[in-house]
Amino acid sequence: MTGEPTIGDVFGEMIRDAYAVATGIGPRPLAGGRLPRPVIEIIERDDGLINGAPTAHYLDPPEAWQPYDHRAVDRVRGHVLDVGVGGGRIALHLQQSGVPVTGLDTSAGALRVCRHRGVRELVHGTVDQHVADGRRYDTFLLLGNNLGLIEGRDRAPGFLAALAALARPGAQVIAQGTDPYGTNDPVHTGYHERNRRQGRLGGQLRLRLRYRLLGTEWFDYLLCSVDELPGLVDGSPWRLVDVDDRDHPFYLAKLQLA
Amino acid sequence: MTGEPTIGDVFGEMIRDAYAVATGIGPRPLAGGRLPRPVIEIIERDDGLINGAPTAHYLDPPEAWQPYDHRAVDRVRGHVLDVGVGGGRIALHLQQSGVPVTGLDTSAGALRVCRHRGVRELVHGTVDQHVADGRRYDTFLLLGNNLGLIEGRDRAPGFLAALAALARPGAQVIAQGTDPYGTNDPVHTGYHERNRRQGRLGGQLRLRLRYRLLGTEWFDYLLCSVDELPGLVDGSPWRLVDVDDRDHPFYLAKLQLA
Repeated sequence: MTGEPTIGDVFGEMIRDAYAVATGIGPRPLAGGRLPRPVIEIIERDDGLINGAPTAHYLDPPEAWQPYDHRAVDRVRGHVLDVGVGGGRIALHLQQSGVPVTGLDTSAGALRVCRHRGVRELVHGTVDQHVADGRRYDTFLLLGNNLGLIEGRDRAPGFLAALAALARPGAQVIAQGTDPYGTNDPVHTGYHERNRRQGRLGGQLRLRLRYRLLGTEWFDYLLCSVDELPGLVDGSPWRLVDVDDRDHPFYLAKLQLA
Repeated sequence: MTGEPTIGDVFGEMIRDAYAVATGIGPRPLAGGRLPRPVIEIIERDDGLINGAPTAHYLDPPEAWQPYDHRAVDRVRGHVLDVGVGGGRIALHLQQSGVPVTGLDTSAGALRVCRHRGVRELVHGTVDQHVADGRRYDTFLLLGNNLGLIEGRDRAPGFLAALAALARPGAQVIAQGTDPYGTNDPVHTGYHERNRRQGRLGGQLRLRLRYRLLGTEWFDYLLCSVDELPGLVDGSPWRLVDVDDRDHPFYLAKLQLA
């Protein structure tokens, strides 16, 4: 035994347990077989940094959302693709407001929770895989930091091309990002420096998620500044038309099909 | 970069941050440089199981304690050694009640927090190391699951001998344990079985703790049933004289110098 995780649907098991804690539906995780155990997402970075974060926010009702989530949702139009639908908090709210919305996720377990919560349109896979399904959208929502799915300079063109292939004319992307550079914590500034020396963006995090016995493969997830956005979007079918950074370091970037 | 932690004072850094969050003393950990980040203890088991647990309980005032903690504290007499004093919650309460108490811990950072909170008598080290200091005690408190420090069959004789070497005549040990066998979760029952096949006690956990960039070495920590206790204590200078298991699976074992 080495302490290494088994590759699996980390997010799905975690969100299932978070849902069980929130609703009493399904077995709740217990410590010592008796005391409720909070559901904690564990995030490892490749420099050895590890953090735990409570998972309840994945299921938060609108009253508990951050203000930028509300502003993002207010800006949608037409048929919405919720990219990384997670626990379904955004899709459920849009659906209840009468907005046509489809939730996309690579986690089968997350989609099971979404379905149980009542989200009707759900697709299992990546944006690239979804192109072949023939469905097209007017708004792509990437909330919960999911601008990070753009990964970095290598993946950005392919990711933005896949969104464009899924887009109706005039479509928009509304993506929430986080500027990682406002810290003077050497744990982070040193990591950013090391990344840059390797030709990566400073906030191009190399992460894996873990929950109980499961882990993901290592993957890139991007935290970038607003200044770095044009370098990622230029040359793609999209134009960066607006940034709302009222809640700095968190921001909403709006892209429009060029 | 491999994602491996640096060996260091995991518990000390964690308890320092938990103290900062609880009191506002010292820099609080923030996510995105702005949102408070809860302080989570991360526990890895050698089969790849990983769990996160909030750390506030290490600083809990008596009102928030489990009932068995109160019953343990009610049983002390004479000079108390709080073995694994942690954030100092037990030692502080005893001291405020006029009970002479010394806190022992291997974490220098935990002792700094204890000192800041006002615990007067503190010793840095293991029970074995403390023997040479010449101090002697009437009650040894091992709360917060610290019966686990007995580790297993190999370490138990040495650990109990060190406590005996620190003991005044008539001394007692009050140790809180947890029976791990009340679960039917295959993640745990399979682990117990594997342990037994290797000649270990079923609940002899092989763990390491992680916090931010730091990790401990892998160490054994024992969860055992009340039935397994005599096998660990027999032949030592101690006699198992009482078990209070009113809060099963949690229990208080009382040992008396034979």
